[in-house]
Order: sequence, then structure tokens, then C-alpha cells
Amino acid sequence: MTDQRQAALQFARTNRDLFLASLKEILAIPSISTDPARLADMQKAANWVCDQLRSLGMQKVKAHPTNRHPIVYGEWLANRGAPTVLIYGHYDVQPADPLELWKSAPFEPTRRGDNLYARGASDMKGQVVATLKAVESLVKSGGLKVNVKWMIEGEEEIGSPSLDEFIKQNRTLLASDFCLNPDSGMIAPEAPCITYALRGLAYFELRVHAATHDLHSGIYGGVVHNPAIALAELVAGMHDADGRITLPGFYDKVRDLSPEEREQLTRLPMNDKYYLDQTGAPALHGETGYSAVERVGARPTLDVNGMLSGFTGAGSKTVIPATAMAKISMRLVPDQDPKDVHKQLEKYLKANAPRGIHWELTAMQGSKASISNLENAGVQALSAALEASWGRQPFLKREGGSVPVVIKIQELLGQESVLTGFGLPDDNLHAPNEKLHLPTWYKGIEALVHFFMNLAG
Amino acid sequence: MTDQRQAALQFARTNRDLFLASLKEILAIPSISTDPARLADMQKAANWVCDQLRSLGMQKVKAHPTNRHPIVYGEWLANRGAPTVLIYGHYDVQPADPLELWKSAPFEPTRRGDNLYARGASDMKGQVVATLKAVESLVKSGGLKVNVKWMIEGEEEIGSPSLDEFIKQNRTLLASDFCLNPDSGMIAPEAPCITYALRGLAYFELRVHAATHDLHSGIYGGVVHNPAIALAELVAGMHDADGRITLPGFYDKVRDLSPEEREQLTRLPMNDKYYLDQTGAPALHGETGYSAVERVGARPTLDVNGMLSGFTGAGSKTVIPATAMAKISMRLVPDQDPKDVHKQLEKYLKANAPRGIHWELTAMQGSKASISNLENAGVQALSAALEASWGRQPFLKREGGSVPVVIKIQELLGQESVLTGFGLPDDNLHAPNEKLHLPTWYKGIEALVHFFMNLAG
Repeated sequence: MTDQRQAALQFARTNRDLFLASLKEILAIPSISTDPARLADMQKAANWVCDQLRSLGMQKVKAHPTNRHPIVYGEWLANRGAPTVLIYGHYDVQPADPLELWKSAPFEPTRRGDNLYARGASDMKGQVVATLKAVESLVKSGGLKVNVKWMIEGEEEIGSPSLDEFIKQNRTLLASDFCLNPDSGMIAPEAPCITYALRGLAYFELRVHAATHDLHSGIYGGVVHNPAIALAELVAGMHDADGRITLPGFYDKVRDLSPEEREQLTRLPMNDKYYLDQTGAPALHGETGYSAVERVGARPTLDVNGMLSGFTGAGSKTVIPATAMAKISMRLVPDQDPKDVHKQLEKYLKANAPRGIHWELTAMQGSKASISNLENAGVQALSAALEASWGRQPFLKREGGSVPVVIKIQELLGQESVLTGFGLPDDNLHAPNEKLHLPTWYKGIEALVHFFMNLAG
Repeated sequence: MTDQRQAALQFARTNRDLFLASLKEILAIPSISTDPARLADMQKAANWVCDQLRSLGMQKVKAHPTNRHPIVYGEWLANRGAPTVLIYGHYDVQPADPLELWKSAPFEPTRRGDNLYARGASDMKGQVVATLKAVESLVKSGGLKVNVKWMIEGEEEIGSPSLDEFIKQNRTLLASDFCLNPDSGMIAPEAPCITYALRGLAYFELRVHAATHDLHSGIYGGVVHNPAIALAELVAGMHDADGRITLPGFYDKVRDLSPEEREQLTRLPMNDKYYLDQTGAPALHGETGYSAVERVGARPTLDVNGMLSGFTGAGSKTVIPATAMAKISMRLVPDQDPKDVHKQLEKYLKANAPRGIHWELTAMQGSKASISNLENAGVQALSAALEASWGRQPFLKREGGSVPVVIKIQELLGQESVLTGFGLPDDNLHAPNEKLHLPTWYKGIEALVHFFMNLAG
């Protein structure tokens, strides 16, 4: 181990109490982004981050104003030839209600046993402070040997409405080799994780019409098509008996899982029992030939998110509805394109819609999947770092959801994101008694020290 | 033609103005059964009917009290050996709003051209008065030669809530050979009709559950079944490619149409264009091998009357719903039994529901189809009567809906109903400017004179 690495790790171990004190400072600021009464606290939290960055010697540190809450930027670009990491984070938190369920006040960080309780402790002030303290450990032990850019926003919990515009106007400022996003989490205290892929989304509304008005099912039942049945038939036809999606060409661009990735995914402790417990479903269901984890992370899926037709109140009404509607969305994997999926769905409907109906399809949302190459320098450096800190290989995960900021960074900056974090499944995110497991957090800071050292090469 | 028939028809022709004056009397009473402010008017209308029956020499005339509005009964049973007809009717009407759309006040019967405008003119005070005036014509021309019983209720427009109990408590009083129900209508002024069959109904609510709670479609899409899709698949499987219903045993008891009936139904002027015009649907749809009229009147059908699952508001929500619901109903034909259909649907669901869901089925309503034998004395007498009056064979119709009173009379008294009436499709039933076409009404009275004469043999 190099001297600097050793020294930085030593610094991190020696200064745990100071790191904790620093974390408590930012946790004490109620930076609830959705609450108009907290505008001053939002600015205070942004300033706190700026102060930290300045104390680390970062340059161009500024809380950039937006229509709502500032985005903090700072950089250290002194290492010519070394990689540049964009570090994403957010300093805003969810509201704390219901307050009466908190054992200690949400903005009075309180330690009980190994845990520190406060709103934002895990999501994600704790993670932001972990990156700050890892960089501090390096700065105080001979200096940072890679380049870093920080983009710490204050609107993540309200959907990052200002981020698009900020990124578009600062493409050069934000240019990097990849993005480190520590807003993800771990499966268990001994199970560090890297999420390297997220699915994309294509979301549609399908409306089916037959008669121009609701009809009496006695007088007209048997004469015209029932739009609810026609819709059901169209929806039913979208999967085959193997749970595969039947839209023409849907799988053409789907990137297959490599044997190495499949092997990685089998390591995850999310087996069938896990998903049965989580969902309460009587049995699992999905595409033949893939495990649950593979189906969620690495295979495209099609869901009906909503469906409405006719009379849905209590009791009975003998009506043939004039119209039926379904919200239909697909989770996409590399290299599917939501625009292609739109065409595929239209083609399917043209081929399968019966003569007795009209239909209308509206595209509501679309984003591609995001994936980091496992050979990406960030994935490699982070993987080795987590292994060094935990003494075991991290789990390499593909997740089923979309993280808007990852998509924005991919689409607007062309940068891959590597997601990690040191929160645990029982951290009560967005709920009362949010907490951070401190032994895990300290390990995380050390892992990040390794990460920056690994990246420097 | 017999002397009495001739005399009675002459009486009917001579007294048209008096008949019209009589009709105007009852139309002037705002007997709106749903309106609590009209209780006195309801009693007044019932009394008016009683007075009419007494003036015809009917016996046991009484406005029987119920929980809401009286049921008028009266009888003439002097003709030993002759058939007994139960004449059903109702003296209540729909509300008249929106009042501002009426050209003349709804309860001030007003003649414009050949039509008399008033609420209830067609539905069905005009029809009740037609039967009274036909019987009067016979009574004044030598006496009625058949036996009649009248059951004229005041709650038809609110679903006949008291009728069940009244029939149950008066089975002997109401016993007859068949029921004449003039609450049906004609297709056109020159197209008299007899409706001899109505479909039954079986109505269900089907609920499908998978996970115990709504799930994030990113995190769980691909792992558990989507109840909306499972429901769609179950619904889609309920019809085959020929539009036939796939529930096991569903057609076992379906009575085939006789060649004679099919021939009769081809005479109806309700061709495909008629149904396309009525519904505005882009194409008709239904069971292969049957015409639209046959499908509606004589074949069982299955419709989804309502469907609900997940997020149905504006915009998008990426949820896997915990539950999905469909209201599913079947129109039944002789000799299907709604209890059998319940079992068939359960059997279908047991055989076809996938492992990944739970389902619950609730039976909401059930009634058998009703049909009169075409050899029924009532059908025969009425058919010849309509032909005598219009100079053409009446249309023999099977209708797709259910008429609750016909079902009650069939189930509680075991009596077939023969439906007719002298209203026209443009009579604005339940709407502003309801009217009665007087030339047709006068023809109808004469037809009823023929009917009672024919029945006497």
C-alpha cells in the first residue's frame, strides 16, 4: 500500500469524531426542498457545502442560483492527465412528517447505539459528507491525485426541475470521464454494491372507442364491440406464453447479458423468496429463462399501470362503455430506444386492433436505459475500493428503475454513472426515524479514499 | 266479422274525442313516482285508474297500499271457461326536467298536429288508457267475453320495489293464463310489434390481486404478475375467434332459434346499417353465424361493463397496481340459468387464472331469460289483432334487455308475458317533449278490441 493511501486511511480513522460532528452540522439544517418556508435553510445548506468545498481547496466554488434552490459547483483540476470524476449529490431532504413518530427530533441528529438518527442522514447528506471527508483525508495526506467536479443540487426530492437547464448551460464546466453517484445503497452491512445499469422507460396511454356513446348492454349486447374487451384482448396479446413481449421487433436491440454479468447477478442475495416476501404475491411471474434479478435489472418488461372503462362504482350498471383506457409502460434495457418502442406498439396495434374499434395512442414519457461498461475506469476503481474496505467483492447490480439524474447526465453530457452508497435497507428513507449506520459509513469513507487512490492509478 | 266486433270497433271510432279527453285527464296529473312532493298526485292517479275500472264494471277494484305508491287491482271474471288475461301497466311517469326544453308544459297535454305532447303520453299512460278504452268499447257493445285482471302499479319508473311483495302475497288473485304488457313499442307507425322474448342477466364483479400493495414498476417490473394484465388475459380468453363465449358449458342449455323464428327475425327492419347508425361504431361485432338482430335478441352475450386498475388520472405513474377489477355480465337466453353461469365462470377462472394472482368473484344480479311460446294463445290473438288493425303481419321480436316486471311475473306467477304497445321510436321517452302519435294510438285501441275478441274465440 502506498504511503499516501496509508496516511489518508489513518487520517480518516483518526478523525471519525470530527467527521461525525461535521455531518451533524448539515443534518441540523432543515433543508426540505418542497417546503416554501425553508428557503433560507436551503440557502444555508448550500452555503455549508460551499464552505466545505472551499476548505478542501476546491476552485470555482459557487452556489449557482436556479428558479428554486441553488446548485453547488466546485472543482479541483490540478492533475493533468488524471481522470476527472463528476461527483453528484443533493443537499435537500424529504419532509419529516409525521413528526410524532420520530423518537428524536428529525433535525437534532441523535446517536443511539451504532446509528445516527436524523432526516437526511442516509438520503443523502451522509453520502455527500462521506465523499467530502474522503477527499479531505486525501487532501490532508499529500493532496488529491485525480480531478474532481462537484455538482450538489437542492431539488432531487422534488424531481430535479432545474438540473436539465443547469447541465445544458454548463456542458463544458461539467465535462468529466464519468459520474460518481453515491445516492444508491447497500443490500446489507456486509454487502457493498455498485449499480452500473438502470432501465429506461417508455410510457403510453392507449384509448379504445367503439360506439360513440355508452350503450344499453341488453339492447346492443352482441352487436358492437365492447371497448373494454377489445382493450383487454389487445393487452393480453402483448405477452406470449413465455412472458415475452410480442411487439414486433421489441427485442431486436436488446443487449444480451454476458455470461460474466449473469454470474455477477447470481451473487445477489435477492432470490425468489426475497421477492415473494417483498411483494406478498402468491407466486413470481415473468419471462421464461431468466431469474427474478435478471428480469428486473436486465430484461425489458411491459406493465399496465392503470386501466379504466365504464362503470366502476358499487353495484351494477348494464352498460357497454363507449371507451376504455390503459396506461401501458415498458422498462427498457440497452440498447432499446423509446422512440422505436413507440413505433413497435403502433405497429402491433395496427396489426391486431379489430375492425369494430378506433384507437388512439399517446406517448407520455420516454428515456433510454443507462449502463456503464463494467470495464469503465470508475466501475473498476470503485469495485476494488469496496473490496479493499469490506474484504469482499461488491455486488454488481443492474436496477430496474430509472434515476432521472443518471439519464440527464447520460443524455446531456454523454457520461456514464457509477452508483454506490453506504445506506442500508432499514434506513427508513423518506420515513420517520431515518438513520445512518455509522460503522458502515466509516467503512464507506475509507472505500472512497481507496476509490480516489485507485483512480489515480 | 261478428256483430259485436263490428259494434265495438264502431264505438271506438265514434268515441275517439272522448278517449282523448280521458287520456288528457290522467296526463294532467303529475304522477312522478320518484318525487316525494308528488305523493298526493300519485294517489290521485291511482284513484283515477280505479274510477275507470269501476266505470267498466270491474270488481274488487282497489288501490292496494304499498310502502310507497299504491298498486291498482281490478278484475272481471264472469266468463267461465274463457281465458284470463293479466293486464300489466303503470300510472307513474319519469320526472319532466329539464323543463325549459319543453315546448308546452309537460302536465298540460297539448295537441300539435297528429301528436299529443305530455309526460307519460307514450310511457305509458297512453298505453294503459288504450287498454281501458278497448275494454270500454267491448263493454258498451255487448260485454267483455274474456276474463281480465288489471295490475297497474305506480313504481315502474323507480324499479318496481313493491311489486315483488305484492305478487307474492296475491298469487291466487293474480293467477291468469298469460300477461299482456303494453309497455313495449313499435318500430315505425306502420310496423306493429310483439315482443315475445327477453334476455336474462348474470352480473359479476371479478377482482384480481397479485402483490399486497402497489409496487414500483422499475423495482418490481418483471418479477410479479401485473393484476391488470392478468385480468385482461382472463377477459380476453372469455371469447374465441368466432365471438363465442368460452366458459365451459355456457351453450349447453341455450335453446336454438327455430327456422320459423329466424325467418320472423329477418323481417325486422333492423339491418346492419340500422345498428351502425344507432351506435356510431366503425363496424359491427359479434358471434359468427348470426345476424345482428339474432345476436341481440336470441343469443347470449358477455360484456365488460366496467374495468378499473391502478392509476387512471392525467399523466403517468409507474406503478404495478395491487389489484384490478372488472364488472362482467352476460345476457342470457332460454334455457340458461344465471346460477349455472356463475359456476361456469368460476370453473373458467379456476382453469385459467395464472399462479401469480388471487381472484375473487362476486355474483351481483341474476335473472333467467323470459320467452313466450309463439303458440301461446296471447301471442296468437295479439298477432291476428295487430294484423287486422294494420293490414300487415306484426313483427315478432325478441329483445336483448330484461324487463324486471316480466321476469317477476314469470318467476313468481309462472306466467308468460306478451309485450306490445303503440309508442314510436321518436316519442321522446324519459326526455323533454314526450308525445303520442294519435293515429297510431287509435289503431292500437282497435287492435286491442280485436285482441280481446280473438281471445274469446
